[in-house]
Amino acid sequence: MRFEHLHTDPSGARRGRLHLTHGVVETPIFMPVGTQATVKAMTVDELESIGAQIILGNTYHLYLQPGHERIRTLGGLHDFMGWKRPILTDSGGFQVFSLGDLNTVTEEGVEFQSHRDGSRHFLDPEKVIAIQEALGSDIMMQLDECPPYEADRDRVARATERSLRWAERSKAAITTDRCSLFGIVQGGMHEDLRRASAEALVAMDLEGYAIGGLSVGEPKETMIAVLDYMPDCLPREKPRYLMGVGKPEDLVEAVARGIDMFDCVMPTRNARNGQLFTRHGPINIKNARFKDDPNPVDETCGCETCRRYSRAYLHHLFRSREILGMRLMTLHNLSHYLTLMTAIRSAIEENRFSEFRKAFHSDLEQPST
Amino acid sequence: MRFEHLHTDPSGARRGRLHLTHGVVETPIFMPVGTQATVKAMTVDELESIGAQIILGNTYHLYLQPGHERIRTLGGLHDFMGWKRPILTDSGGFQVFSLGDLNTVTEEGVEFQSHRDGSRHFLDPEKVIAIQEALGSDIMMQLDECPPYEADRDRVARATERSLRWAERSKAAITTDRCSLFGIVQGGMHEDLRRASAEALVAMDLEGYAIGGLSVGEPKETMIAVLDYMPDCLPREKPRYLMGVGKPEDLVEAVARGIDMFDCVMPTRNARNGQLFTRHGPINIKNARFKDDPNPVDETCGCETCRRYSRAYLHHLFRSREILGMRLMTLHNLSHYLTLMTAIRSAIEENRFSEFRKAFHSDLEQPST
Repeated sequence: MRFEHLHTDPSGARRGRLHLTHGVVETPIFMPVGTQATVKAMTVDELESIGAQIILGNTYHLYLQPGHERIRTLGGLHDFMGWKRPILTDSGGFQVFSLGDLNTVTEEGVEFQSHRDGSRHFLDPEKVIAIQEALGSDIMMQLDECPPYEADRDRVARATERSLRWAERSKAAITTDRCSLFGIVQGGMHEDLRRASAEALVAMDLEGYAIGGLSVGEPKETMIAVLDYMPDCLPREKPRYLMGVGKPEDLVEAVARGIDMFDCVMPTRNARNGQLFTRHGPINIKNARFKDDPNPVDETCGCETCRRYSRAYLHHLFRSREILGMRLMTLHNLSHYLTLMTAIRSAIEENRFSEFRKAFHSDLEQPST
Repeated sequence: MRFEHLHTDPSGARRGRLHLTHGVVETPIFMPVGTQATVKAMTVDELESIGAQIILGNTYHLYLQPGHERIRTLGGLHDFMGWKRPILTDSGGFQVFSLGDLNTVTEEGVEFQSHRDGSRHFLDPEKVIAIQEALGSDIMMQLDECPPYEADRDRVARATERSLRWAERSKAAITTDRCSLFGIVQGGMHEDLRRASAEALVAMDLEGYAIGGLSVGEPKETMIAVLDYMPDCLPREKPRYLMGVGKPEDLVEAVARGIDMFDCVMPTRNARNGQLFTRHGPINIKNARFKDDPNPVDETCGCETCRRYSRAYLHHLFRSREILGMRLMTLHNLSHYLTLMTAIRSAIEENRFSEFRKAFHSDLEQPST
């Protein structure tokens, strides 16, 4: 992997380029989430057509079903799902702690019960690397321990230190240079813990750094406060990935603070629940006011859904629980996110990110029609 | 509407061409079912790409949700759903009798409770025409009374005669020449009733004739026995539509007996349940033997699903209840039906339908791999 840091806008926003095994990714970038070897409701052709450059796969889900060894035999995750561009896989840690039942964490690793069938499993840093190598990920994430937001400082400190030891073990477990490893900064909402975590990870000279443990229930100002100091603790010449974030406005604010990469289920999951993003904020298509509305979701949006279909039709599809509704709404939301990132990249290149950011917030404050 | 009867193969199979308000349809044809203003899981572009020439909409469902007046205001069913090619709508009669609760039939019409919310509604032949005109259908079906398969001869006879009077009223209710009316032959499994029904409808000089009341639970031989005499009771110069049928082999056998048009939920509904049609018969993708199978559903099929994805991937998507699985499997099944109809049309044009039919059945008898 190679990261080119192309340009920094006067605001501090960065424009970069990631060279990965399966291609090039222009940053800042949003990565659609493809949990179970599919970005829900989308084909890979649709993802390409709306400009998705890299997608995320979930190690926890793929390990349980269909199994990483099966995917390896079938040619790796790329061949299995027909996606030719880069893939980042998470470590499964977050899902073990949030979905898995009765998990037990030791220094060695984590034992848990599958949320699917109750079967017992054990994952450690080495196995998590082996799984991601079997999947053929362009970017692998280290296994980390994710304490809940409510955890006290001692517990967060212990989890952060253990995650650092797991990062060392992850790096040592790598057997191929086709898959790059990112470390994950933890430390909860404690600045000293986070700074120490970042410093230790940077000393390991990993290929990229993620900020974990945000967007876990904390107030927005708390997240912003972490982002105010966190990116500066990370090296300029390595990519910075803010995990699991967020709303469009969160992306803009994080880019302003020097973040390069994002993933979030929000555009896809919310689409399936009828929430559609527009430049004036989200609307919910199930609202009765849309049932006779002949207009597109967002008249300034160039996506297939907005060019072809009315809010009235989407309202009808949603009320009728039709699969096509979920498809068209997912396509719109992902287009909205990816178009936003394209606009962000152009603004940085042209040294006008601060103006862009102002105009973005001003649009957002106007009432959606 | 104009129907060109282009050619009859020595077997009796017919090749024709329907000229409708929204375009030309080459027959014999299969019409994908788009119950709620969408062929489930498909976009209109996908339907066009696999060669769908005409689709079916369900009057009963569209009347209840979103309502025909709303669809009229939004530009008609074509504009509402973005489909530019012809649409046939059924009368809603079949759904009133099968889905509606507590229906009461009188000479005037039928009162029923919505299966959605229990609200009470009344439909008569005139209103059913008005609804279909509001939808802007290319082909409208008359309201008919559909007695259950178990009904005794007297009940069938009364329903058949009432359906004839409703056909007269339907014809008299038409207010536009943009929408063509088809009559529906009833008569259950009674040859004399069916012959009398056909004779009376033909005397009304309608634009096409459907055979109703088949595929309602009768043995296959009973349906074939009706098809052995029924098409000959209908005029050569008008299209013949076998409603709600059926499996690929049923289509081939009905074409051999002079049928021009078909519709059925089988390819779409069965896809969502994991059943995929191949030239060697159906397979069920949830079967464990497919979980490591790197082959396409049908190696001779040219559809996107077969060109791009393995049975193992479809098996995984189905097990994971992913929307993409329903999409890819629906696309395959509809392609299978539409490709079959294309092959049938070529065989008729080249006077080799009998050989085609033999080869089709021979393929079907071979074990699916």
